[in-house]
Amino acid sequence: MKKVGILGGGQLGRMLLQEAANFPVDTWVMENDPHCPAAHLCQHFVLGDIRNYDDVYRFGKQLDALTIEIESVNIDALEQLEREGLTVIPRPSALRIIQDKTEQKLFYQQHQLPTAPFVIVQNRAAVNDLLSFLPAVMKIGKGGYDGKGVQVLESAADTGKAFDAPSVLEKKVDIDKELAILVAVDKTGQTAIYPPVEMVFDPYLNLLDYQIAPADIQQKVLWRAEAIALTLAKALQSPGLFAVELFLSRNGDVLVNETAPRVHNSGHHTIEAQVCSQYEMLWRILLDLPLGNTAALHPSCLVNLVGEAGYSGPAAYDGLSEVLKMDAVYVHLYGKAETRPARKMGHITVLGKDRVDLVYKANIIKRTLKVVSGTKENDPGNVKR
Amino acid sequence: MKKVGILGGGQLGRMLLQEAANFPVDTWVMENDPHCPAAHLCQHFVLGDIRNYDDVYRFGKQLDALTIEIESVNIDALEQLEREGLTVIPRPSALRIIQDKTEQKLFYQQHQLPTAPFVIVQNRAAVNDLLSFLPAVMKIGKGGYDGKGVQVLESAADTGKAFDAPSVLEKKVDIDKELAILVAVDKTGQTAIYPPVEMVFDPYLNLLDYQIAPADIQQKVLWRAEAIALTLAKALQSPGLFAVELFLSRNGDVLVNETAPRVHNSGHHTIEAQVCSQYEMLWRILLDLPLGNTAALHPSCLVNLVGEAGYSGPAAYDGLSEVLKMDAVYVHLYGKAETRPARKMGHITVLGKDRVDLVYKANIIKRTLKVVSGTKENDPGNVKR
Repeated sequence: MKKVGILGGGQLGRMLLQEAANFPVDTWVMENDPHCPAAHLCQHFVLGDIRNYDDVYRFGKQLDALTIEIESVNIDALEQLEREGLTVIPRPSALRIIQDKTEQKLFYQQHQLPTAPFVIVQNRAAVNDLLSFLPAVMKIGKGGYDGKGVQVLESAADTGKAFDAPSVLEKKVDIDKELAILVAVDKTGQTAIYPPVEMVFDPYLNLLDYQIAPADIQQKVLWRAEAIALTLAKALQSPGLFAVELFLSRNGDVLVNETAPRVHNSGHHTIEAQVCSQYEMLWRILLDLPLGNTAALHPSCLVNLVGEAGYSGPAAYDGLSEVLKMDAVYVHLYGKAETRPARKMGHITVLGKDRVDLVYKANIIKRTLKVVSGTKENDPGNVKR
Repeated sequence: MKKVGILGGGQLGRMLLQEAANFPVDTWVMENDPHCPAAHLCQHFVLGDIRNYDDVYRFGKQLDALTIEIESVNIDALEQLEREGLTVIPRPSALRIIQDKTEQKLFYQQHQLPTAPFVIVQNRAAVNDLLSFLPAVMKIGKGGYDGKGVQVLESAADTGKAFDAPSVLEKKVDIDKELAILVAVDKTGQTAIYPPVEMVFDPYLNLLDYQIAPADIQQKVLWRAEAIALTLAKALQSPGLFAVELFLSRNGDVLVNETAPRVHNSGHHTIEAQVCSQYEMLWRILLDLPLGNTAALHPSCLVNLVGEAGYSGPAAYDGLSEVLKMDAVYVHLYGKAETRPARKMGHITVLGKDRVDLVYKANIIKRTLKVVSGTKENDPGNVKR
């Protein structure tokens, strides 16, 4: 049985492991928290720092293949492991391009992939020389994740919020819709593409809020988005699963926003809504099995369940029973003991007959299900008298 | 978070745990094999003998609720735990009725549930006084499982094959179809019933061979089967999931064959084919959440993957790639290191548009996918020269 390792033990690893149990594979996970969401679902849990060269190298040496569930891993170690013959998916070369958002942007430019105009800046001071470029979105080169590391700079008044680190300063796009497309690439270069999904973001949290599949877009936008996603995935020259986030601008342009070289939040719905889920797809790629069918079985909506504002501490799920009374609602909790405001605690997938039905159900879910803790921060009831 | 234990660590436990990761639950498993299919998917694995009073009692004392994935558990310990306040699902009283097939048959009789005429015999010798009752099926009272403990006695010539233990001797039914219905019962007595499935058995292995849902039966047979299954589940006076196996005889009678008080092989297809799978349903019951929707999303066929005759040893899956090229085919391997002839090693669920499509695909799968080991027993290539 092949030994396959996952760097990172978050919810993406958790869902990968739920699916792994269907396949002939011996699973290994490395993470620095023995209580992380994926820790108890693998055959072999190794405590270690995925950003540390020695930890990653030692972990990889005992395996037949290695993948990631988060980009912030030690790429030097992965390159050395690959040189020594280990199958690393995605390839470290692709990961290096994606891990740094400045490299990622240059890669799009180099491959004529349409993306918003940008300037690479080295620090906060450099932004002051580019005031005519505003309004812009500043994306920190390294270390951004889940909405952290992204800052909107509307005007000169916002430059104090700029990152003081190498970053991409990108012209703010007048967005009509945000789309995401998953592309699977196997070791022989064969590809399979998932139908695009349409994302609706929360303007405050900058975390995926809810998402509908299929996206409501014109045929020519679909073709354009698919062509971009496929070209991009092929240009990365790596097997794996790639989540390509795109903007459809109000003037009809389709632009690449960013890419993740792994299973992705925008693909959670594929567990119930697709013939082959993104998780199954990645195991097929890792185990040299044929790519699966990406067709949708049902229209679906994905609602992210994030920690409610004002609550920190042991997580409790208010309204779970109410939501589970609804039809064709699939709750996925990530097993995180502690909630914090805006922390990703789970997601809910809803199947429905059409968009109206899905949005109706999604809104009920968002109103009903809340991740709270026993005591509310700043709760008047907690005030000492 | 509730601590819920499972007695038994086989494939049913494995699939329960794959689903458990979506719910707020701390999972515990007891089994005497640390490499059993469910061992690595729970939060807490406890090595122990599920038939031993002390082991089961100690395991249960640290939990909030306890369930089973096999009937051969120590019921005395479960009764004591229940008396001390533990939630045990199914209730030990229901388990006691079902664990012994002679008790099970008397229970059907007592509740006017139609079942084949039977005599309870204490040993092999008693069968010789009942030759006029043959052809009959002899079912050992305790310890039968997966086709073991069942013997067909066609005539006096077969009495040598009779069990020398308390057993049920049941008139052989002239079977038109074998059906199975799952019934879910929550703690408040609410019920949900799954559509019946139709089973096709292998005449040699007496293991479920393949199964189609929905069953191709007349409306009045459906109503009769549903009424029997519901009456039976309610008469057991226990929350839980109950798999009721039924015979449709050639003269149109619907008869109870036997009942399992747990998730069941006949419900594996519900993972992909139903809105709410049998595994999700049992977690909902264990965690006091509302019952799920039992409606089918797609027609489906379930193919059991058993160890190929003639092979024993480390398992290998011949034809896996071929099968995974097929559309809407879901492979579930149980992670058993060693194959043996007729051992349950996995199953495959196929979704399809209708019965013809499903049977066509099922037959391809049965011809293509084989569980073998590196060396074939009695392989001419292995003969020493």
